[in-house]
Amino acid sequence: MNNYKEKALSVIPLGGISEIGKNMMAFEYGDDIIIIDAGIKFPTEELPGVDLVIPDITYLKENIQKIHGIILTHGHEDHVGALPFILEELNVPIYGTSLTIGIAKRKLTDRDVKNINNNRFDLNVIDSSDELKLGSFKINFFRVNHSIPDGVGLAIRTPAGLVVHSGDFKIDHTPVDGKVMELNKLSRWGSHGILLFICDTTNAGKEGYTPSEKIVGETLYDVFGRCEKRIIVTTFASNVHRLQQIINVAADFNRRVALSGRSMINVVDVASELGYLHIPEGTLVEIEEANKLSPDRVVIITTGSQGEPMAALTRMALKSHRLIQIQPDDTVIISASPIPGNEKLIARTIDNLFRIGANVVYKVDGDVHVSGHASNEEIKILIKILNPKYVLPFHGEYRHKISFSHMAEDLGIPKENVILAEQGDRWEFYRKMAKHAGKVKTGEIMVDGLGIGDVGNIVLHDRQTLSTEGIIIVVIVIDKKTGMLMAGPEIVTRGFVYMRENVQLINNAKSVILKELKNLNSKQFKNWSHVKGVITKTLFSFVLKHIGRKPFILPIVTEYQEE
Amino acid sequence: MNNYKEKALSVIPLGGISEIGKNMMAFEYGDDIIIIDAGIKFPTEELPGVDLVIPDITYLKENIQKIHGIILTHGHEDHVGALPFILEELNVPIYGTSLTIGIAKRKLTDRDVKNINNNRFDLNVIDSSDELKLGSFKINFFRVNHSIPDGVGLAIRTPAGLVVHSGDFKIDHTPVDGKVMELNKLSRWGSHGILLFICDTTNAGKEGYTPSEKIVGETLYDVFGRCEKRIIVTTFASNVHRLQQIINVAADFNRRVALSGRSMINVVDVASELGYLHIPEGTLVEIEEANKLSPDRVVIITTGSQGEPMAALTRMALKSHRLIQIQPDDTVIISASPIPGNEKLIARTIDNLFRIGANVVYKVDGDVHVSGHASNEEIKILIKILNPKYVLPFHGEYRHKISFSHMAEDLGIPKENVILAEQGDRWEFYRKMAKHAGKVKTGEIMVDGLGIGDVGNIVLHDRQTLSTEGIIIVVIVIDKKTGMLMAGPEIVTRGFVYMRENVQLINNAKSVILKELKNLNSKQFKNWSHVKGVITKTLFSFVLKHIGRKPFILPIVTEYQEE
Repeated sequence: MNNYKEKALSVIPLGGISEIGKNMMAFEYGDDIIIIDAGIKFPTEELPGVDLVIPDITYLKENIQKIHGIILTHGHEDHVGALPFILEELNVPIYGTSLTIGIAKRKLTDRDVKNINNNRFDLNVIDSSDELKLGSFKINFFRVNHSIPDGVGLAIRTPAGLVVHSGDFKIDHTPVDGKVMELNKLSRWGSHGILLFICDTTNAGKEGYTPSEKIVGETLYDVFGRCEKRIIVTTFASNVHRLQQIINVAADFNRRVALSGRSMINVVDVASELGYLHIPEGTLVEIEEANKLSPDRVVIITTGSQGEPMAALTRMALKSHRLIQIQPDDTVIISASPIPGNEKLIARTIDNLFRIGANVVYKVDGDVHVSGHASNEEIKILIKILNPKYVLPFHGEYRHKISFSHMAEDLGIPKENVILAEQGDRWEFYRKMAKHAGKVKTGEIMVDGLGIGDVGNIVLHDRQTLSTEGIIIVVIVIDKKTGMLMAGPEIVTRGFVYMRENVQLINNAKSVILKELKNLNSKQFKNWSHVKGVITKTLFSFVLKHIGRKPFILPIVTEYQEE
Repeated sequence: MNNYKEKALSVIPLGGISEIGKNMMAFEYGDDIIIIDAGIKFPTEELPGVDLVIPDITYLKENIQKIHGIILTHGHEDHVGALPFILEELNVPIYGTSLTIGIAKRKLTDRDVKNINNNRFDLNVIDSSDELKLGSFKINFFRVNHSIPDGVGLAIRTPAGLVVHSGDFKIDHTPVDGKVMELNKLSRWGSHGILLFICDTTNAGKEGYTPSEKIVGETLYDVFGRCEKRIIVTTFASNVHRLQQIINVAADFNRRVALSGRSMINVVDVASELGYLHIPEGTLVEIEEANKLSPDRVVIITTGSQGEPMAALTRMALKSHRLIQIQPDDTVIISASPIPGNEKLIARTIDNLFRIGANVVYKVDGDVHVSGHASNEEIKILIKILNPKYVLPFHGEYRHKISFSHMAEDLGIPKENVILAEQGDRWEFYRKMAKHAGKVKTGEIMVDGLGIGDVGNIVLHDRQTLSTEGIIIVVIVIDKKTGMLMAGPEIVTRGFVYMRENVQLINNAKSVILKELKNLNSKQFKNWSHVKGVITKTLFSFVLKHIGRKPFILPIVTEYQEE
């Protein structure tokens, strides 16, 4: 064996592994790097106040001269959303299909990304029949079905062997646009031998097949047929085929369609312009106009399928939407399922809508939504067609990887050839072997307001304490001349107890602190961190003893010097 | 009609209506009041730092001389958990079955409730065959099946008519203790005419029947049969029949059982002592002893089925449990389903367990858990048997009430006789009519640490802002003599940005504030709220412009007076 002389193909997941979100994966061979996707993740409760999370691209910045480009599999936020935040430092060519590039372009313009050659990005539209040559990599594409049109998977030809990356996929034999997944290409590649198959595992563990998107159209038809008043449908804005079906059914029932929510209007704009959405002339109306029509002539398509606090449907349910007032016997269709963590938000919106008297059609009522990801049997089909040497599950949490690996083993892939990679792992693939070869720097970069990466663990930890216990601030003023206490302690609290009703508690706390400070001699007083320590310790015990809480205590020492 | 002369039965839900949690309902007739249940609710994300929520009992305190007692339907937290917090002000007789009173008693002792006649509570054990006479109310009981033994529903005979309250129930024809729900009693009462049926709607909207608890025992038997190493099972501590089944199956496979988690040990204690749990001699072992046994001889029953951060299983999954280290090929069975809102916590625990190499058996793998609440068909059976004039859904959120009311209407109850009560509503029932008769004071009382009710909306709102944006504190010192700025502004931040890395930003903020303060004349300076307003406004715009955030800004003005 002379493997040590052979160059390796390195596969480095920088995100989207053991998690659902911020997908980004680098492929490196010699002096060539290509990147698949650049997505964001929405923050969990442990990241209070963080707007979104993007992958750490330190490794890519350090190797920027090797990078040939970023290839986007489809236009979802968790695949393209990070572009506006990383392109300032990593302005490399970007490749994707027409709709994907259309969405990426709008995203870059919206965010007004600066300093990049006068806002010139190197965006390249490819078709699933194209072949792309980037350094040592030769890339072919195959069409997939997903909850956004124009998604692709990749076949990456490398000197070490052929790698197939599934993209986000399901197998839909009756897709809305008639474009089925190109399984024939996979069969052809599979018969020539595949080194590595990287597979979407979002729904790994779900028995059977994910139903066709067509089912939703049939259910909508039934529901629309029963409605005598206005119909409001909420779904993910990017689910263009869903929008198409809603529009088609609306047309069948001679209803006009109005759009609500900025992202909904944006997507309909881009998708119509690029020919992915076909809206019969005269169907679309402004909301103001729809409000003048008879209720049985109106459908409103709106954002808010996750109960997001600022989204249009949420505001309608709270009766705080400026233009749309839900009326008794309006029908609201929730054509989406909750993203884990949003269950309670959307349940609250449903409850509020019922309270106003609307009929709400949601999950329990039948197939008003289907997933965009493959279930067990579809995943098995791909493994069998491709018959790869190695498999690497991505786009799933850890338990999804485990479900996938059980399936792969059942289908004859040796356990040691199931690569359970973690974020930042470098996995090296040779013609005859694969090995774990260390880690590169990775992590979660927090975006909060205009700041990227300036909110770290200390700040987040503080925010958590502040949120659960509140803060007590103790201010004292020290005379610079004498070094002794000059004024204070002044106590201010926020998020602790309502001060006006707890004057006695605060006054007692002041006395206790003052007593301790008076015990200090002038030498001790000059050591400010000692003084702060005394304040914190005294107040902490006092509060814990009297009301059993552990608020954030912040002593502030201010110095006064006569001018 | 002379209804206005007839006295009414008032039904007043003080909690547990349009929500799942803090159940409490008052029945009032003339000078008599009885109360059903006194539960807590666990706080949602909008109540950061709050430990638990209890009902507002202002109305009951104002009418304490009328109250004959609190009747507990069963021992779950959302039905008995508020007792330790309300009994100081409302020390009335309490009635419940043996296990329910046993649990309540332990709760009162644990919390060390003071000032109540030397810790003497008036706890009374009743049996489902007893009849209780409390003022104008005559109460009979019927056994129900639920996820805790010894639950009952109530038949409350009042001068206005007979009221049936379902308690929390399901219909289990093969319960673990052989004690089926007493449907025969319901039939008998139903044939005599029922004024009002108050029904548990937790699972209203779920098609079909809730499976028998027995199914879980069968699944556990199958799973245990496949395990060669240690088995760790997590479930709700109070699910005594589940514990019994786990213990029985463990005995079948000749495994010893160890308990982990304080509440698990507590429940096993109480339930064994009262005869609700039968543990064969020699089955229970301490964890230290279990650790010395061969893994295939051990079952550990543990808390943590909801992924609660401090629970035993969560700590095992994080490898931070002092006594139990999960080993590869140990099997962990999650014999519970996530309470809405806990989905992500438990998913994370499952992922962590898989990471250590454990086999995790959870929902997707089959019936390792069944619900304790009735599904649609069981609810319909009760409505049909009872054939009540009025129905009032409780123990559910708003959409569950709607699902219930659709069923009731389908079964022939007129729409106007379906009472969709809200918290605090007083519904008056006469022999021939029912009407809404105003509201009593109700609300959510927050318990945080040792404080009850001192955390209100202002404090919670502050906590939310603090948690998402952090706080900037600006301190200035004013000379009392001159009324002018003497020292400062001093700036301290927490949860905002990491200060050490943002010195420039903070310094610039100081300069901007100082510049504005110097523009103030001495008259303006004497108006502290004006000064604070200037600081807040200046800093708010500065921060928003420079990093797009809206932190909590807290100006503190301290005065110095020479002594």
